[in-house]
Amino acid sequence: MNDFDRTDALETPAALVDVDRMRANLRRAAEYCRTYDLGWRPHVKTHKTPELAAEQLRAGAKGITVATPREAEVMAGVADDILLAYPPFGASKLARLMDLPEKVRLTVGLDSEEALRALGSAAREAGRDVAVLVELDMGMGRVGVQSPEGAVILAQLAADAGLEYRGVMFYPGHVRDHVDGQGPAIQAVSDRLGSFLEALDRAGLPPAVVSGGSTPTFWRSHEVFGLNEVRPGTNLFNDRTTALIGACEWDECAYSILATVVSTSVPGQAVIDAGSKALAKEEVRAEGGGYGALLDRPEVVVKSVSEEHGILDLSGTDWRPRVGARVRVVPNHVCVSVNLQDRLWGVRGDEVVAEWEVAGRGRIPLAGRR
Amino acid sequence: MNDFDRTDALETPAALVDVDRMRANLRRAAEYCRTYDLGWRPHVKTHKTPELAAEQLRAGAKGITVATPREAEVMAGVADDILLAYPPFGASKLARLMDLPEKVRLTVGLDSEEALRALGSAAREAGRDVAVLVELDMGMGRVGVQSPEGAVILAQLAADAGLEYRGVMFYPGHVRDHVDGQGPAIQAVSDRLGSFLEALDRAGLPPAVVSGGSTPTFWRSHEVFGLNEVRPGTNLFNDRTTALIGACEWDECAYSILATVVSTSVPGQAVIDAGSKALAKEEVRAEGGGYGALLDRPEVVVKSVSEEHGILDLSGTDWRPRVGARVRVVPNHVCVSVNLQDRLWGVRGDEVVAEWEVAGRGRIPLAGRR
Repeated sequence: MNDFDRTDALETPAALVDVDRMRANLRRAAEYCRTYDLGWRPHVKTHKTPELAAEQLRAGAKGITVATPREAEVMAGVADDILLAYPPFGASKLARLMDLPEKVRLTVGLDSEEALRALGSAAREAGRDVAVLVELDMGMGRVGVQSPEGAVILAQLAADAGLEYRGVMFYPGHVRDHVDGQGPAIQAVSDRLGSFLEALDRAGLPPAVVSGGSTPTFWRSHEVFGLNEVRPGTNLFNDRTTALIGACEWDECAYSILATVVSTSVPGQAVIDAGSKALAKEEVRAEGGGYGALLDRPEVVVKSVSEEHGILDLSGTDWRPRVGARVRVVPNHVCVSVNLQDRLWGVRGDEVVAEWEVAGRGRIPLAGRR
Repeated sequence: MNDFDRTDALETPAALVDVDRMRANLRRAAEYCRTYDLGWRPHVKTHKTPELAAEQLRAGAKGITVATPREAEVMAGVADDILLAYPPFGASKLARLMDLPEKVRLTVGLDSEEALRALGSAAREAGRDVAVLVELDMGMGRVGVQSPEGAVILAQLAADAGLEYRGVMFYPGHVRDHVDGQGPAIQAVSDRLGSFLEALDRAGLPPAVVSGGSTPTFWRSHEVFGLNEVRPGTNLFNDRTTALIGACEWDECAYSILATVVSTSVPGQAVIDAGSKALAKEEVRAEGGGYGALLDRPEVVVKSVSEEHGILDLSGTDWRPRVGARVRVVPNHVCVSVNLQDRLWGVRGDEVVAEWEVAGRGRIPLAGRR
């Protein structure tokens, strides 16, 4: 690898992480969780980088959340308490989970008898203790058990299947727009959750863990009655969507894509070398449109992207960059942008202070890596 | 790696390539180009896989088109005529291009004096012959010289900069909707191109190469006066968008994501383990909505995606998959889905016949690979 010490020397597009902002975001999250006595189990799908998971654990995280076997394998090097927040199906995924180092306390979230029985068989055969959280639908309508009775049945089945029933989880992904006006939506989650917890209590299955939380709802997690664990991912870095919906300040955005202006041929715009294969192409679910905005000039929006091009809309600014100029773009959704990177560069201003491989990216078993 | 012989054994999500369909797509493209005497220079950004570039070259491609230094490095193992269709900026990118094997005939597309001079300096220092194509804007409004005079100036500057002026290129990405009604749009491109070619001829700079073409316009490339090279990428695999706009048949879609149904908790839908990190999340610019459709049931659409989940809309079908069932999803845009894969599996029906690493993915220099 090259020796870098300034961002000027980086090839673009490059993913930059402002380490001071990231650590401030970390500290704020940790402090909030301490204040309200919430277990903090950050979702590492946002960064997929073991060094950053290690920072979260040092800052007070009780464990981590992962999305894939690959993430679990990579993170097992730094974490010994891992929640896989997705039901694993198929012999290959189950085998990879059972092959995690013994010291890893593995918990899996699921919402079906099929997933539970398959996991139970794999755990029994492997002689491994595995715990489960029953996933509940708190109104998002994606996955999760629909009724309190359904939750009780799955919790009861867990023991039959040779698994430890540890509690429940949900993802309030539907509560995200207009953070300031979220009160009623948070209350609805709280009420609905209450009816599930009550049924589980009545059945003699009180959950030890009640895990929820997302970045948009993060700072109101303490308003959800019964919640004792949160799993935010994005708020380590934040992104344009998080800022636009009011769940962070713009200057708390720690992640950006360093890009070069490669064409100014067409008047009123400038084309950069970061498109859907660097920023991703996710529409923003908030006013503003486009696919990202400049870190130092948030009024300049990436109005469209193709694979290797992003088009900066210059209609609202007098700024006119020259070909060859460099900019930093905050993408709409940081998690999918990180997933497009080989590595992240830790920076402090224009100084490069760290290089991290995005080792949890992809699907290939760590052992079989080529 | 594991030994696979059936798709049943693959871990999901997995990217499948129907090798017979792919080869039929290849043959049709090659035959069209032969019929109309068009040079065929497929864009490998679609597959990023050297084995597939080699197939294209064996089928009659005159060379390949690449988007990144990484693609150029990886493809140099199989191709000796490479067009980088994007202007390279920065010392690192230029050095990587100059370090390509000597046997590679390198051409670069660009639209600015800045790009031209930087490339010229690098070529001179490296003692390498590099050719350029002047990129023209044929109405898309993304990049490209705006006027015939501008094209003449850049072509003249090329020689001063120590580069070989080889011709012109453009990308008609604005001509894509309603392929059957494209006549006027194709005619407009043809007319506009004519005025550029005339000016270059008058200046004594007739282009040897006039390179255009995209997948949506592919089959009408012969209607563009003066065009002698085409650079389609997508039509090796096709995708849902290509089918929806009428530029291919549904049964010419050669690429799909094998996914597992992981939850059927919410009535009227089924959740699969392929979301924006496997299919990508690009809205379709055609009727139908959603982010993909089932290969064998195109009426079943992936109505929404989150990172590791896709939601199948079952409202228009009686089909009710069980948890654990497997499906194949054709994504809206194949190029960005491939870019999310570590590898592609060549299949014939349910049989796995090939495994290809997506070696051109990412940005890290091939030599510095970890």
